[in-house]
Amino acid sequence: MPRAPKTPASKPFPQAAPYQGGTAVQKISIINLGDLEAEAKQVIPAGGFGYIASGSGDEWTLRENLAAFQRIPIEPRYLSGVSAPDLTVSLLGMTLSMPIIVAPMGSHGLAHVSKEEGTAKGAEAADALMVAATPSNLSLEQIAAAKPGAKWFQLYFPSDLGFARELLQRAKAAGYTAIVLTADTVWASPRETNLRNKFKTPMIQLGKGNVPLGGAEALADLSNVKKALTWDDVGFIDKACGLPVIVKGILSPTNAKTAIERGAAGIYVSNHGGRALIGAPASIAVLPRIAEGVDGRVPIILDGGVRRGADVFRALALGANVVAVGRPVLYGLALGGWMGVQSVLEYLRDDFALVMKLAGTQDLRAITRDYLSPIF
Amino acid sequence: MPRAPKTPASKPFPQAAPYQGGTAVQKISIINLGDLEAEAKQVIPAGGFGYIASGSGDEWTLRENLAAFQRIPIEPRYLSGVSAPDLTVSLLGMTLSMPIIVAPMGSHGLAHVSKEEGTAKGAEAADALMVAATPSNLSLEQIAAAKPGAKWFQLYFPSDLGFARELLQRAKAAGYTAIVLTADTVWASPRETNLRNKFKTPMIQLGKGNVPLGGAEALADLSNVKKALTWDDVGFIDKACGLPVIVKGILSPTNAKTAIERGAAGIYVSNHGGRALIGAPASIAVLPRIAEGVDGRVPIILDGGVRRGADVFRALALGANVVAVGRPVLYGLALGGWMGVQSVLEYLRDDFALVMKLAGTQDLRAITRDYLSPIF
Amino acid sequence: MPRAPKTPASKPFPQAAPYQGGTAVQKISIINLGDLEAEAKQVIPAGGFGYIASGSGDEWTLRENLAAFQRIPIEPRYLSGVSAPDLTVSLLGMTLSMPIIVAPMGSHGLAHVSKEEGTAKGAEAADALMVAATPSNLSLEQIAAAKPGAKWFQLYFPSDLGFARELLQRAKAAGYTAIVLTADTVWASPRETNLRNKFKTPMIQLGKGNVPLGGAEALADLSNVKKALTWDDVGFIDKACGLPVIVKGILSPTNAKTAIERGAAGIYVSNHGGRALIGAPASIAVLPRIAEGVDGRVPIILDGGVRRGADVFRALALGANVVAVGRPVLYGLALGGWMGVQSVLEYLRDDFALVMKLAGTQDLRAITRDYLSPIF
Amino acid sequence: MPRAPKTPASKPFPQAAPYQGGTAVQKISIINLGDLEAEAKQVIPAGGFGYIASGSGDEWTLRENLAAFQRIPIEPRYLSGVSAPDLTVSLLGMTLSMPIIVAPMGSHGLAHVSKEEGTAKGAEAADALMVAATPSNLSLEQIAAAKPGAKWFQLYFPSDLGFARELLQRAKAAGYTAIVLTADTVWASPRETNLRNKFKTPMIQLGKGNVPLGGAEALADLSNVKKALTWDDVGFIDKACGLPVIVKGILSPTNAKTAIERGAAGIYVSNHGGRALIGAPASIAVLPRIAEGVDGRVPIILDGGVRRGADVFRALALGANVVAVGRPVLYGLALGGWMGVQSVLEYLRDDFALVMKLAGTQDLRAITRDYLSPIF
Repeated sequence: MPRAPKTPASKPFPQAAPYQGGTAVQKISIINLGDLEAEAKQVIPAGGFGYIASGSGDEWTLRENLAAFQRIPIEPRYLSGVSAPDLTVSLLGMTLSMPIIVAPMGSHGLAHVSKEEGTAKGAEAADALMVAATPSNLSLEQIAAAKPGAKWFQLYFPSDLGFARELLQRAKAAGYTAIVLTADTVWASPRETNLRNKFKTPMIQLGKGNVPLGGAEALADLSNVKKALTWDDVGFIDKACGLPVIVKGILSPTNAKTAIERGAAGIYVSNHGGRALIGAPASIAVLPRIAEGVDGRVPIILDGGVRRGADVFRALALGANVVAVGRPVLYGLALGGWMGVQSVLEYLRDDFALVMKLAGTQDLRAITRDYLSPIF
Repeated sequence: MPRAPKTPASKPFPQAAPYQGGTAVQKISIINLGDLEAEAKQVIPAGGFGYIASGSGDEWTLRENLAAFQRIPIEPRYLSGVSAPDLTVSLLGMTLSMPIIVAPMGSHGLAHVSKEEGTAKGAEAADALMVAATPSNLSLEQIAAAKPGAKWFQLYFPSDLGFARELLQRAKAAGYTAIVLTADTVWASPRETNLRNKFKTPMIQLGKGNVPLGGAEALADLSNVKKALTWDDVGFIDKACGLPVIVKGILSPTNAKTAIERGAAGIYVSNHGGRALIGAPASIAVLPRIAEGVDGRVPIILDGGVRRGADVFRALALGANVVAVGRPVLYGLALGGWMGVQSVLEYLRDDFALVMKLAGTQDLRAITRDYLSPIF
Repeated sequence: MPRAPKTPASKPFPQAAPYQGGTAVQKISIINLGDLEAEAKQVIPAGGFGYIASGSGDEWTLRENLAAFQRIPIEPRYLSGVSAPDLTVSLLGMTLSMPIIVAPMGSHGLAHVSKEEGTAKGAEAADALMVAATPSNLSLEQIAAAKPGAKWFQLYFPSDLGFARELLQRAKAAGYTAIVLTADTVWASPRETNLRNKFKTPMIQLGKGNVPLGGAEALADLSNVKKALTWDDVGFIDKACGLPVIVKGILSPTNAKTAIERGAAGIYVSNHGGRALIGAPASIAVLPRIAEGVDGRVPIILDGGVRRGADVFRALALGANVVAVGRPVLYGLALGGWMGVQSVLEYLRDDFALVMKLAGTQDLRAITRDYLSPIF
Repeated sequence: MPRAPKTPASKPFPQAAPYQGGTAVQKISIINLGDLEAEAKQVIPAGGFGYIASGSGDEWTLRENLAAFQRIPIEPRYLSGVSAPDLTVSLLGMTLSMPIIVAPMGSHGLAHVSKEEGTAKGAEAADALMVAATPSNLSLEQIAAAKPGAKWFQLYFPSDLGFARELLQRAKAAGYTAIVLTADTVWASPRETNLRNKFKTPMIQLGKGNVPLGGAEALADLSNVKKALTWDDVGFIDKACGLPVIVKGILSPTNAKTAIERGAAGIYVSNHGGRALIGAPASIAVLPRIAEGVDGRVPIILDGGVRRGADVFRALALGANVVAVGRPVLYGLALGGWMGVQSVLEYLRDDFALVMKLAGTQDLRAITRDYLSPIF
């Protein structure tokens, strides 16, 4: 007998909670995404902002994610006749309008009262793929309802295998077309900002989305996440829902190789925004070696420090198929709700298109390492 | 029937405008060009100063232009008997008194009330070649009248080909001996300082020079600049006026190779003073590889970060034939009108001559990579 | 006739001395060990804190010890199924519960009124090996009484060979299982902070531990330490007490090679916490070449800049068998007595275990250079 | 008929001049030479201090002189049995007590009322070779009288060959045993600090030493220095006085090779304390390649950034035979007259001896590149 869902996961966000994110719904004007963070800081309560903005440990990886991009000069080829570059990209059977997607992030309610619904609606308006996260403030069905277009579901693998199966089947039923398995956060790495702020796991504080009531609340703070995660669990996902599995958190060429051998349909290069393993390298720094090993067999997604169109260009030139953007989307959400999210994604799209026009690359396949300085 | 010029392009600078650059006409004493910028900031209105001084994006390229020069040590050879080095250089059939020229820049009226006339007169007094820019506050004929000696004309290629032809023929008639085709700014890269200052395109604000009245005002803000620029457009210039074409904005060895194959008479290595493509390398950083590919077939002009005689020496040692100087000339203009421009150019000339004497290089051909530390 | 101990070395810490370290005995909450230093500074008197925290000369080595670790990215391998890593390590016939030990340090009374007894009790509670130091505020017997478990004795080699022999025999009798011979501090390198603070050698100020009364007080300030120390002195130690000798202060592959040839049972890579030779490299920077030369023949201990679990992982990956921690232990002692020491050691143990779980290494042998980025 | 000296060069220092350097005569306590500079700044008038402390241009070379030393780790070999290292060095037929000498510097009266006499007496007390400079505030004979021991004479080559010959013969007669020909300052490089301070050439302001009255005053500000200096001028010196000629200012391996071919008896690697050619490399950075080319045929002297015993060790390990120290000597002079100079030189000697003892090098020949980290 199939296990019934433990909960409709539709519990409303607690109205009485003193915590409140942004409330504005408006297009926002963007000078750069660094400025945007400073503006969002005015809107998001301190504890929530610290949770979003910070990284683990001494934040070396967080800083290095940004710094490593800056060390890669782009060598453009002018007079190439490119004026309307083609930004579309094929990815696991879909065609996306641009190689920029929304990274999975927890608890969007920290940023804005519209929670994940705002993000989903904004991503849809910008025609961008969104990765919905397990620890959300709305159920995966609610998010899907706000995002008819391309969407994937990020999984923190539950230790309760029955619940895991249920979650995956719900995701498939709701229209998510791939599962992004988070490999790098089975245990929480210390986030010192949260410790200083005495900020508790937001799920517990803010309400419950995908996590059913009962014994599974602790999924939110990883205590009910399966610990000794192995490659067999990738097979479990496939068996449970039949969706392709993208493994997120890959930072080692060896690990990428194993992932492909064990059935991963995509490699997601990430250090969890500098929030997981202390001492992890910048995503962009390991990308070239990983891409060399992957050799085009599966698509590569990269996140970590993408803040300008030039960064999108660099990542694609070094082997990524698409890049994912995290914090800036939440900042857009905080400042303008779904319209703010749309603004952020369109800013990046337009800035990337400008780089393509200047560099002289008509489509994404044209973007190769030959457009970067050879040594950096 | 030949197309008549749409406008004499002689509209005076609007007297009623509240904007006013410097007014002094005097020799200036120069300790270094960094100090000069600080002094000029006191004279030039904030919006105009921001427009001149800033770069695109996070200004990494702007800073790197300066920093990359500092990383290149010069290894002098003393007791070489050099006391009166020969600074002359042959360039496209001319003999210049020194390998230092004035880079093309828009809207000199932002710096000084004498506008481009001041710059032209100062360059002439210093016996330096000047590159007059399309988006000037005076017509190309007015600039030419103030600069009987060596001069080139910089072209933003108009989308109106008739106007393009007219402009080129006017340039030739006025005595310009080469066309510098700007390849890197067909679309504007975001200048965040201007956005923060809410500073509008200066041409519109300050008046019109080469841009005829009517539908072409937008040339100033690039909206009437031809977008999908190709190498065929180099041929168009040649056909329209017969002048040699120097392609400006080259940062890629591959691009330089193509330029020569497609008829470029000179390669102008530049990142537009850090104002164009975000993520572009420092000019001096790509020069060695470009020079290797060019292999002496056409002359190389370099701008971007030249602030001392040592920088001129480094650029020549790495393969440039001449260097162009931008912002410092406008700062000299702001502080001393034409005499200030002359002061800046003579400061660089004398400082460069001193480096030649100390390094032991009698003429420009003697300046080679052997005078630089092998690794930097 | 065997030489009688010159003194029972049991003179109490002078009660009348105005100097007083911390007095609290409590578990401490640790965000990171950098914060801990700042907190300890509030508790330890300025002169004592300066003595503990500072390094020799311009403190380049002190800073580089920390900075060099940060330049080494860790490339984890997720989904490896590791949830309960084995931290045990075999070392000179013992099995330690973790590869983190307490480095030898002088005068713990500077940090806390419990002096070395607090450290010993805390290390025992955390099940960590402790290296007791010659210049202690308690006798080696008193320290041993507080530390029934694994312990080594650090030796400043006395110029009085009789006293040297006596000290070594006392150490063996008290249960110490190895001698750590300090090779790098036969002469004192200038500690500029102490000079500025006019802080005198703490032994003299605080009381006497292992140093017998009489002519040997000066051992504390190195004046009675044997100067022209040679490899023959390693043999003397062996002959005197039969304990294995670990040579501490090795920073050169050549020196490590000689040490093994001359009978060293272990190589202790260290720059004395940046307190000895000015201009010495970071410990972690020389470790790979030393480990290559040692080639597993004897164990390698490393100290200098270990502040996180990631640092332990890096050191082991580059060839160390165990790491030693110095200043943070004294800060824990200052803030919480023996319970503070225990807190610090358990923080490092848990943080290291987390890195192992994330990196996917089940035991210490699995930690190899393959888990680090190839170039750093 | 031999040309009579134009002047006894015994004109007293003008008593009425408002300028006055330090007056104290005392031993000084030295924590480090960086502190010493700060202390000397309190004693030396601002213009004079700026003249001494500053470098040319943006002072990149001045800073790099110090920074480049810090990047070179020393790998000591402990337990080598060294307790009394031999610091003596053979140099051009002399035996010096240590490889640390006083660099040539102008106008010691800027630092202290005792002028060069103080420096000479202090160097003699420390048993250090001193290089007396042409632009001194006392005559070369007066300096020689205060320095019976080892001394060399630095020459700014006069354009008046008769005066040049006279000066050289006076130097030989006064007991100087070698001529240090300054090759790098035939023309003055811009010292921006002096320009900002409106500080004039000190010789003119302070009085005249070696420069005879009459038409030669301008020697002080280089206007009467021979400009197109060549290798033939080395021969002139040899012919004029028969003393060995050391060429000072060498920064290029090619230049060093030529120097030896043209009769130089020694190579003095220097960038004039960062005061000559803008863009010159750090002295220590070019030393290895120069030493490789010199290959022991003539001795190598190096100055530029030596501030600790570790720096002396590094320079010797990379091929220098002796190092020269400049500014710190003047700071010692300012703070303590001849006793201050002695203090500085003995501080460096003792600090260097300590490094030798720790590193395990019994004499200077033992100090080789094997004691440095292989890559820096």
